[in-house]
Amino acid sequence: MSLGMRAAKCASSILGNSKALTSRSGISNGLNIRYRALSATANPTPKVIFSGIQPTGIPHLGNYLGALKQWVKLQNEAAPDTTLIYSLVDLHAITIQQDPDQLRKWRKESFAMLLAIGLDPERSTIFHQSHVPAHCELMWILSCQASTGYLARMTQWKEKTAGEKDNSAKLKLGLFSYPVLQAADILVHGATHVPVGHDQAQHLEFSRQIANGFNTVIGRNVLVAPETLISPAKRVMSLKDPSAKMSKSHKDAKSRILLTDTEEEIGEKIKKAMTDSLDGITYDPERRPGLSNLIDLLHYTDEDASKIDQVTIAKELSGMPLRIIKEKVATAVESAIRPIRERYQALVENDALLNDAAARGCEKATESAAKTLVKIKNAVGLS
Amino acid sequence: MSLGMRAAKCASSILGNSKALTSRSGISNGLNIRYRALSATANPTPKVIFSGIQPTGIPHLGNYLGALKQWVKLQNEAAPDTTLIYSLVDLHAITIQQDPDQLRKWRKESFAMLLAIGLDPERSTIFHQSHVPAHCELMWILSCQASTGYLARMTQWKEKTAGEKDNSAKLKLGLFSYPVLQAADILVHGATHVPVGHDQAQHLEFSRQIANGFNTVIGRNVLVAPETLISPAKRVMSLKDPSAKMSKSHKDAKSRILLTDTEEEIGEKIKKAMTDSLDGITYDPERRPGLSNLIDLLHYTDEDASKIDQVTIAKELSGMPLRIIKEKVATAVESAIRPIRERYQALVENDALLNDAAARGCEKATESAAKTLVKIKNAVGLS
Repeated sequence: MSLGMRAAKCASSILGNSKALTSRSGISNGLNIRYRALSATANPTPKVIFSGIQPTGIPHLGNYLGALKQWVKLQNEAAPDTTLIYSLVDLHAITIQQDPDQLRKWRKESFAMLLAIGLDPERSTIFHQSHVPAHCELMWILSCQASTGYLARMTQWKEKTAGEKDNSAKLKLGLFSYPVLQAADILVHGATHVPVGHDQAQHLEFSRQIANGFNTVIGRNVLVAPETLISPAKRVMSLKDPSAKMSKSHKDAKSRILLTDTEEEIGEKIKKAMTDSLDGITYDPERRPGLSNLIDLLHYTDEDASKIDQVTIAKELSGMPLRIIKEKVATAVESAIRPIRERYQALVENDALLNDAAARGCEKATESAAKTLVKIKNAVGLS
Repeated sequence: MSLGMRAAKCASSILGNSKALTSRSGISNGLNIRYRALSATANPTPKVIFSGIQPTGIPHLGNYLGALKQWVKLQNEAAPDTTLIYSLVDLHAITIQQDPDQLRKWRKESFAMLLAIGLDPERSTIFHQSHVPAHCELMWILSCQASTGYLARMTQWKEKTAGEKDNSAKLKLGLFSYPVLQAADILVHGATHVPVGHDQAQHLEFSRQIANGFNTVIGRNVLVAPETLISPAKRVMSLKDPSAKMSKSHKDAKSRILLTDTEEEIGEKIKKAMTDSLDGITYDPERRPGLSNLIDLLHYTDEDASKIDQVTIAKELSGMPLRIIKEKVATAVESAIRPIRERYQALVENDALLNDAAARGCEKATESAAKTLVKIKNAVGLS
């Protein structure tokens, strides 16, 4: 398909154009399994992996090592009949007030970054959530079955409403109902497996409950209850406050390394990373979180260090001055980030390529979603 | 456009295909105005009238005289540049559990009935809400601005939750959030005027608040705050319990006249309508609700009786036996319903025509909605 044709298709498919569908199915039982179970062996039913990330700025090293790198690994190691669907969930980004121009910029940058880290828009389906109306359509249908009591007990809503009892005018419906949209995101693609962090396990459980509840009411398995894919935890801590996770909301920009940071910026941030004044080099995340975080970074980004565990790395580093260790870490991080940064810089300038890839993602995601939506609408009597 | 082409378009537009848009705009100030203000005079900005009805069975005489007949009147008396958009709001029907096969049947029958009463699918836009995904898309965007406190205070939610404090698991999100979908229904078409009954005035006020609130946040008028069109009240009461409105949920089917009732059924139901044992014929809705309801029906459906008021009608009937009065009422009601019933019987057998008209409505409603949605997505940074 030519660039021009694809762009034209995007323009229409962004408003929901749909086409004939390819066959795909998969009903699963809801057991947590690990990545290795997904490696390239024949599957009885083809797997559908779905995950999403909010387009709220350039990802930092914690986002990359904790989630995005796994997306690429899943793509590269998946069986040929596994479908991989990755969404920039821009509809979730607007549950809090956003500057429209900034969100527009972030959407583009985030999309470029997904390609830069190594996701392939032909092998995987990479798309902006707001380009596929079926997510909102399924959300409404599921809203008619989702209990308000359950939503009110969900952790994030409870946190947001804590101490705001008399202030409910400020609490927006979107903040209350977004778990149902999140469920729709997953269920509309018939996802069999969802890679999640531990803090999202509750939402996935909610999606499973909604799917099972819906199937019970309808009397047959229309929705797929997805299984969680718990990835080996790769937590990256703040460089300034190593007791907390690296975060884009931390006030000090030096607390995080962005995937667009230059070699100098990386070197500078790691050089100034908080450690401690204890003697020697030991791996002890509890008592020496800053130093242990640096050792973790080496383990995650240096090829040789990735083959041994962190305690062994610490032993090999013992005797070295902290300055040299930091340089080693900076070099390893730079070597991991450099190819991403370079690809990103080329991609973000290439509007034609980005638009083409987004159109391709929209087209594939629309086809994927339509298949479920047609079944659901029929099941509830809407067609 | 041929039947076949239109059917093909429907298949794709039902999943949200969109096309180039015609220009239309209209920002209004929110004053209640009456129908006569809409008669065929030149308008400074073209008017857009929107209304919806749930596809939950064959309408009864109360639905027809109270709302649907006004839709036809609005259509037939509208200025040439007025857009009329009438939706079968099937997504609202599923906020309570529906039998899928029954809903499927009701959707078709309701659509046929809208044509049978005289709505013209070329002059007006007549469509199934679930065929136009933009309603759900706008609902989500508005959800991010709608306050949960306001929703919790809305009358219908308060009624539904009364005495169910410990039972919130049974209360579904859709029952809580549907006013936001209702607002989206209206706002996505840039409606300037919405005909409403008195019991829906609160929801329209909510739509106006959402539109104004959104415009304030965005800093410009993207959404149109609609005005209410209060129709001259035509309340039709139950034939069995004339202190209550005619209702499809009343346990006794003889309490209501359906638009598909035969001449015999109409005669029988009116013959058995509850009146009173007071002497003489007087119009007194308070003390003689049953008799007054019959006089109202004569006023609403008999051409001669429509030209004089109910008190005068009562005087002209005085001296007549109740049996004769009931026969007069039955004849008048039958004459009003017969052409509708006959057109309906022909239409409901004609699947090709119904599918064609639904496809045409879907196409026009999709174009109408896309125009607003494109602006809204741009305004919040989603495009």
